[in-house]
Amino acid sequence: MHYLDNAATTRVSDAAADAADRVLRQHFANPSSLYRIGALAEDVIEMAREDVADSLGAKPSEIVFTGSGTEGDNMAIFGACHARRAWADHIVVTGYEHPAVQNAVSALEKDGWRVSVIAPDETGHVDGAAIAAAVTGKTALAAFMHVNNEVGTVLDVARIAAAVKQKNSRTAVHVDGVQAWGKVPIKLAGTAIDTYAVSGHKIHAPKGVGALYIRSGFHMDKFLCGGAQENGRRPGTQNTAFIAAMAAAIREMQADRTRAARVDKLAKMLREELKALDFVTLNSPEDAACGLVNFSVADIKSETMLHFLESKEICVSSGSACSKGEASHTLTAMGLAKSRIDTAIRVSFSGENTEEDAAALIAALNEGRATLARIRRR
Amino acid sequence: MHYLDNAATTRVSDAAADAADRVLRQHFANPSSLYRIGALAEDVIEMAREDVADSLGAKPSEIVFTGSGTEGDNMAIFGACHARRAWADHIVVTGYEHPAVQNAVSALEKDGWRVSVIAPDETGHVDGAAIAAAVTGKTALAAFMHVNNEVGTVLDVARIAAAVKQKNSRTAVHVDGVQAWGKVPIKLAGTAIDTYAVSGHKIHAPKGVGALYIRSGFHMDKFLCGGAQENGRRPGTQNTAFIAAMAAAIREMQADRTRAARVDKLAKMLREELKALDFVTLNSPEDAACGLVNFSVADIKSETMLHFLESKEICVSSGSACSKGEASHTLTAMGLAKSRIDTAIRVSFSGENTEEDAAALIAALNEGRATLARIRRR
Repeated sequence: MHYLDNAATTRVSDAAADAADRVLRQHFANPSSLYRIGALAEDVIEMAREDVADSLGAKPSEIVFTGSGTEGDNMAIFGACHARRAWADHIVVTGYEHPAVQNAVSALEKDGWRVSVIAPDETGHVDGAAIAAAVTGKTALAAFMHVNNEVGTVLDVARIAAAVKQKNSRTAVHVDGVQAWGKVPIKLAGTAIDTYAVSGHKIHAPKGVGALYIRSGFHMDKFLCGGAQENGRRPGTQNTAFIAAMAAAIREMQADRTRAARVDKLAKMLREELKALDFVTLNSPEDAACGLVNFSVADIKSETMLHFLESKEICVSSGSACSKGEASHTLTAMGLAKSRIDTAIRVSFSGENTEEDAAALIAALNEGRATLARIRRR
Repeated sequence: MHYLDNAATTRVSDAAADAADRVLRQHFANPSSLYRIGALAEDVIEMAREDVADSLGAKPSEIVFTGSGTEGDNMAIFGACHARRAWADHIVVTGYEHPAVQNAVSALEKDGWRVSVIAPDETGHVDGAAIAAAVTGKTALAAFMHVNNEVGTVLDVARIAAAVKQKNSRTAVHVDGVQAWGKVPIKLAGTAIDTYAVSGHKIHAPKGVGALYIRSGFHMDKFLCGGAQENGRRPGTQNTAFIAAMAAAIREMQADRTRAARVDKLAKMLREELKALDFVTLNSPEDAACGLVNFSVADIKSETMLHFLESKEICVSSGSACSKGEASHTLTAMGLAKSRIDTAIRVSFSGENTEEDAAALIAALNEGRATLARIRRR
């Protein structure tokens, strides 16, 4: 099988699965319990917190474990806005955020918040300066993603955060780092970024675990309400097993020093091959990152091509898995023609992919186009 | 080791750990993905949904998977109240709810909601009729727990729910079923209960997964905002592995037909032995369920006794693990004297415990009392 949908989710690495299994069977105790086996479970979490903090250039005390990237995004967005509602009524957000950010902002908009949306241009780029320019004295939050999940655009989040704070030092800066984590280097310490959400299942850890970086001293309201876990910041008994698995996965990602270069090489190879095909239009910009290559195949609906590729044991997607079947949010925001959106394919490589995978995709695309176009002509 | 803290968390059963491991290694695909391996991951979830629904006497479409019991409680409480805010301003809740309910209600109180608290009496009982009596034409929500997590009191939740609806048919009824699930029989279909929250880690499944029953047609606002997962009701890529593990665990709980009787017998045996000790006062009522036995040991602080018991390889707690170190919320609500609260011990049996565990505890309590009282006298 050629699994080329790593932006949707990644294979769980053996190291991550082993860590989960070990903790499930050996450390079942409640990490909040006062006896020794509880303290050992707590140690599992605190060691993982150090690994996650280290990967983000942050302090362990700045990391809160969550149940998903979505939860981290929601916690940051609602927490920041609610804490600022006495003086603020405005949010700035890009037009190509993940639904976890977009729909949280929409919910606030329904509650009366004003929202400025900075749309990407047709090449998939968002103007970072425009984000800061939209910030006013009443802006509670500026939210923008590090790497876009559909086309792979990278934003210079540290620079944009600094510009936002220069406009209004009280504006909270939230970054959705789900696609970037472990792939694009980031050192959060010293930046003006207040919160940064990550998820385990994009880095070969299981689904159902994530983390939120919360800058020391950052002021936010609670989101989930309950027990005193995570230093009072995120209630609910911690998912000890998957927290350990996520730490194992990020350690493995960081230890693989050639990973980024291999993934970049594959993406570049695919982009060059696609450019040679007259029935393909690239939707990702040239400088897209993290192995993301989005393109449209003339006249063949995404779903039709997906099924053809699947018959060749190739897994790709038409966009975000989270919005199953709906028209691509990012490509729509980019203002692409409907014909291009309806025929879009998203390929996303991981460190586990090889040139064979890319070659198989190119061959299948050619065959698929020929076969499916013939069916259309009948 | 004698693990007698099953209300804090339970050992992950082999069946649950095996299910998690199998899904992690064989079904890594995103369950929202359109290709076959995505559909197979979705099948894992849908089969689990049937098992969970079956255990609750509900339809699979009424089950939403969550990341914890806390999330289910929060989702139900905030979702119900926000959806009713046009006409309602009032909440009725018992005085001995878990922090996941209590603190969510407190957050709403800070937002201007009025809250009526129905306190338990000194025997640990809550008057169900008083809950319904407090409901008015402006009550958005009545929330009460099925089995109290500290003393084991059982409420007749179906009867109370019916009484609440008779007072106000628009009042939402939420039940925290975390301690009851798989232990006290429940058939939600046909009851007036609107939402019922459960958690995996109290039934020998891993931490980090839960479920919320939402009655068909029940009106509630969204809590987490994001993608279209769980039929648009709970965003975030599903925790496929732990959903499967939770289903395996509840199947196993239900297949063990003698479990409840064994646990009840152990609790009864312990209660009788404790009654014979003149330095012990029982805090749990006679009719407490789910293997929960709460008692106070004269003159020995809870933490001191916990550490002594730990030296005998016995794990118990002083109350909810979620409020590490704080004075028991339930015993405080019951109006017990500080001296009794400060010396409280909570024992909670599971189907894995034996008479040997109970006997070891009794022996250790006697030894501990003698040893520690002697130290005090010096």
